[in-house]
Amino acid sequence: MFPYKTSFILKRKIKSPLYLQLANQFIALIKDRKLVPETKLPGSRVLSELLQVHRKTIVACYEELHLQGWVESVAKKGTFVNANLPELQQQEFLEKESKNEQNLIGFSFYKDSFLERKSFDTKDDFMSLNDGVCDVRLTPINDIARIYRRISSRKTIFKEMSYGATYGNEKLRKTLSSYLNKTRGLNTSKENILITRGSQMGIHLSAKLLLQKKDLIVVGETNYTSADSCFMQQKATLLRVKVDENGLVTKDIEELCKLQKIKAVYVTSHHHHPTTVTLSAERRIHLLNLSKKYNFAIIEDDYDYDFNYQHSPILPLASHDTNGNVIYIGSVCKTVAPVFRIGYLIAPQQFVNEAANQRRFIDRQGDALLELTFEEFIKNGDLDRHIKKVMKVYKVRKELFCTLLKQHFSDVFTFEIPKGGMAVWIKLNKNYSWKTVTKIAKKYKLEIGDWQRYDQYKLNHNCIRIGFASYNEEEIYELINRLSKTMNTVLNLEKL
Amino acid sequence: MFPYKTSFILKRKIKSPLYLQLANQFIALIKDRKLVPETKLPGSRVLSELLQVHRKTIVACYEELHLQGWVESVAKKGTFVNANLPELQQQEFLEKESKNEQNLIGFSFYKDSFLERKSFDTKDDFMSLNDGVCDVRLTPINDIARIYRRISSRKTIFKEMSYGATYGNEKLRKTLSSYLNKTRGLNTSKENILITRGSQMGIHLSAKLLLQKKDLIVVGETNYTSADSCFMQQKATLLRVKVDENGLVTKDIEELCKLQKIKAVYVTSHHHHPTTVTLSAERRIHLLNLSKKYNFAIIEDDYDYDFNYQHSPILPLASHDTNGNVIYIGSVCKTVAPVFRIGYLIAPQQFVNEAANQRRFIDRQGDALLELTFEEFIKNGDLDRHIKKVMKVYKVRKELFCTLLKQHFSDVFTFEIPKGGMAVWIKLNKNYSWKTVTKIAKKYKLEIGDWQRYDQYKLNHNCIRIGFASYNEEEIYELINRLSKTMNTVLNLEKL
Repeated sequence: MFPYKTSFILKRKIKSPLYLQLANQFIALIKDRKLVPETKLPGSRVLSELLQVHRKTIVACYEELHLQGWVESVAKKGTFVNANLPELQQQEFLEKESKNEQNLIGFSFYKDSFLERKSFDTKDDFMSLNDGVCDVRLTPINDIARIYRRISSRKTIFKEMSYGATYGNEKLRKTLSSYLNKTRGLNTSKENILITRGSQMGIHLSAKLLLQKKDLIVVGETNYTSADSCFMQQKATLLRVKVDENGLVTKDIEELCKLQKIKAVYVTSHHHHPTTVTLSAERRIHLLNLSKKYNFAIIEDDYDYDFNYQHSPILPLASHDTNGNVIYIGSVCKTVAPVFRIGYLIAPQQFVNEAANQRRFIDRQGDALLELTFEEFIKNGDLDRHIKKVMKVYKVRKELFCTLLKQHFSDVFTFEIPKGGMAVWIKLNKNYSWKTVTKIAKKYKLEIGDWQRYDQYKLNHNCIRIGFASYNEEEIYELINRLSKTMNTVLNLEKL
Repeated sequence: MFPYKTSFILKRKIKSPLYLQLANQFIALIKDRKLVPETKLPGSRVLSELLQVHRKTIVACYEELHLQGWVESVAKKGTFVNANLPELQQQEFLEKESKNEQNLIGFSFYKDSFLERKSFDTKDDFMSLNDGVCDVRLTPINDIARIYRRISSRKTIFKEMSYGATYGNEKLRKTLSSYLNKTRGLNTSKENILITRGSQMGIHLSAKLLLQKKDLIVVGETNYTSADSCFMQQKATLLRVKVDENGLVTKDIEELCKLQKIKAVYVTSHHHHPTTVTLSAERRIHLLNLSKKYNFAIIEDDYDYDFNYQHSPILPLASHDTNGNVIYIGSVCKTVAPVFRIGYLIAPQQFVNEAANQRRFIDRQGDALLELTFEEFIKNGDLDRHIKKVMKVYKVRKELFCTLLKQHFSDVFTFEIPKGGMAVWIKLNKNYSWKTVTKIAKKYKLEIGDWQRYDQYKLNHNCIRIGFASYNEEEIYELINRLSKTMNTVLNLEKL
């Protein structure tokens, strides 16, 4: 007889009931062919004595095995391992280390190499440069969490907790519509708004609806790389136009339009990503006129509308669009905190409807509780107050950062003081390379990160984008200090 | 001179400062060509008298217009509308109703007709059938919101609030890994886990990585339609195999494998969607063996693992997979509430890495605060307690629902009492059609919804899936009452 007595390990102190522990160990024996099909299992009385457990435990175990299809009961004959079980042809791996098993893969899949991102494991005592993110320490997280909890305790909240609208919470769409109409001069109603997860989903959905293989989209010669990747994933062809101190050179776009059918233009009009320049008024109108004449869509990614230190923000292209050419994309991620993945896509209604159809199949719907939380946060005026507060702080930081940059690095760095946004576009003297700087910086516990991504098309501009908003004054001094040490070493190296 | 005095409406009681109100109205006049390029604007002293505002307001307004590029200042000559502004060729629409403007669209885009879903505007006094969702009134929303707020008030929480891992919160991945290993017999570590937004994103990402145009995927002849749509969107070819009382007929899959390269098989093994049957033990092993022999991926969508009323849940295919063929997908949406969009994709590490790359471009990252909330909810044992609680409730509801169905509809409905899940697969006597039933039901304030989606491939099975879990006992009686009235009318109709 099979050595039942020594084949099972039953633990009485763990949560899992005995009959289930036993059943699962039976299944393992059956899968491993230690108990082969048609084997007769011992009667419940016999096994209960062997294993020193109550007979009811054995009965429950056999019942479980039966229900799961591992054994068959034959009246008056007993319980048998199911005769029809095929052999599980995988024993050869059962003995391997679990580490190896996790890396085994039994099928092939497609990879998009342009989607890969370098990641940097930054140690705790390292400072990391970023390309312009907000300081989440200033986020009124307690206020937001309080609103979240208050909303969650409403008696009728369960109405928002089941499957709901793919478009996002209706209240938020209404509030956002009137907020954006007021602050950005738009003319939308809730039907024009799809609530997304951050701007990224808006770009993804737009790319998906506008572009198929070989379709043409115009982007800047430097551009936000995550947008580039979305367009490449659609297998579209990216046409790159110059970006100067007034933003995208629209007359080059006009030339392209004369030659071929352009499906869309992607533009970060408020502050071009990465160079931070603002699209001028002439070019705004020119671009809108072109879009009308040549029937292309403008994807306007207004990722940092709220941040302009010299004057009030410039109204987006979408506010001048009366012909239905602009898809306007924004989010609260840069303004409040990246963790709150609430964004919006604003477009003609037919486009919004189809974007919602698409969204259903990647993410079904948003988080209505968080959406309602932000509905209150916006309607209460909390968002406006937060923007006012951080604007003051970031302005001081920008000035300090630029002053120190000028003071310490006038020989090696050139840059324009940005009018807005949260980052500076810094050109390194062409006698030096960011590659060396990045390498040396690590010695001084400074992580510059993926500097190459700013020049994927080999313009050799020798620039990178450095954010200032997320560091407080003390940290800015420390950052400049580490960068100084780095640059001194780099300069000395070159002298040798 | 231009009638400046009557062209501006300045409101002192609203929040927006006067200079900005004025500047925006100037911009509108310039865009409308009421003020054409090169027009000289009045001096600040003159305009301030005309409009009865402080001269500083005018100066600030002109400064704003200048910074935005709408006007130019010429030393000693004054302020002029920018000579280089092109004409905005869109005036024809300016006079139209805003309603029409929102429907205008100036570009073309692609539509996937198979993504469209019928939507049903259900009035408040209507009861709606669903295909098996949980009762969110039982969700411990207050406990969850309390954890959320507690986590948000931690001093170090800001570390989780910026841009973070696309894979999901590390703590949740660890906790989930050990939870799933314990409850589902998996053998994973956190490297095998990508936190997604619900199961839908897991299916989408798998489809994207596994399937390109004309690739072959096997699904049931009846299948979860949202999964079908994901595969169709990849332009894959769907091969449909029979589903009987033991689930997918795996010998038919074997025949297909012999003929051509199969990339993947999609299976809802625990309870086939929509028919609710469980994949038998033999077929589980057979399918795993096939996947190894023919190197295809098994997408195992375990959407309702937690719900089995007769015995403990059957371990997923993934628990027997030692060759790296299974991509295991699940979520808390069906267990806790659909609003909490936390799901997971579990697969060999290389696949998880590429899925994370892809995810970055549709949604960047998840909601770390919610992920941490669920990490606690799981680790605390709250999730287990919740499942225990609702299981008892749903079991009672299932029994009541099935008893009443048998009592009232034995002539017209046939069904198997489901072993688990939250829905019953109901066959209508073939003398009647769901089309008529759906139409008549509306009279009795019962919304049956899109019955056609259960038979997209014209098998004429005449079945639909009706959920029972989301109704309390009183509601079940009411639902059966309305359905009885409906069926009586339908039967009488047929007699005439």
